Amino acid sequence: MKIDFDKSGGLVPAIVQDSATLEVLMVAFMNEEAWRKTVESGFATFWSRSRGKLWLKGETSGHKLVVKEILTDCDQDAILLKVEAVGPGVCHEGYRSCFFRTLDGNDWKVTGVRGFNPDEVYAKGRAE
Amino acid sequence: MKIDFDKSGGLVPAIVQDSATLEVLMVAFMNEEAWRKTVESGFATFWSRSRGKLWLKGETSGHKLVVKEILTDCDQDAILLKVEAVGPGVCHEGYRSCFFRTLDGNDWKVTGVRGFNPDEVYAKGRAE
Repeated sequence: MKIDFDKSGGLVPAIVQDSATLEVLMVAFMNEEAWRKTVESGFATFWSRSRGKLWLKGETSGHKLVVKEILTDCDQDAILLKVEAVGPGVCHEGYRSCFFRTLDGNDWKVTGVRGFNPDEVYAKGRAE
Repeated sequence: MKIDFDKSGGLVPAIVQDSATLEVLMVAFMNEEAWRKTVESGFATFWSRSRGKLWLKGETSGHKLVVKEILTDCDQDAILLKVEAVGPGVCHEGYRSCFFRTLDGNDWKVTGVRGFNPDEVYAKGRAE
């Protein structure tokens, strides 16, 4: 179950897709440790580039991602996780998917579904 | 329609999803020029990290990706293209999706659908 982490400095993109609706929920990066944790625990775990540390998705919000299926691509340098999302949304802005903006002419238009109020969920001031 | 290209050295991940079936077909990277070409031309264009140049997907195989919808995420540092794939597959190995391997225990198992014979399509010896 080798993944090629060398191509881009130890990180590979990991796409998260809802296993039931097939909606793409987010994309993040994994290093080798995040990858191992994800496989071992069954919960999506990433490398946070902004915080410079391992990031168990949902550790603050409780909105964990239960891994149902793991795929890799032809070059084995990208990962696709099919998940069941625990909670009403994966985005720290409260949307079901992080991809809540659609290009409309020259502007981005909000087209995503709001699942929760981030001010309530991230009351301690820590976003993820 | 600003995208944040600064976060990871000028490149952002671009996920390609079939607009009809919602199957994730591939992920690649875009720099600002690839992004602009994609928006202007309506055909998915990436930055090839291995070849170090702009890459109009399908320039060799003819299997172009017609962009139907463009989304971005909360941080505007990732792109989701919903496309209609021209041709029987996007993967240079002949599969409909580059994500043709699924983790099964400790091994990768081929679970994808083969759409064409790459030896015939890439007869000139140039894969993409």
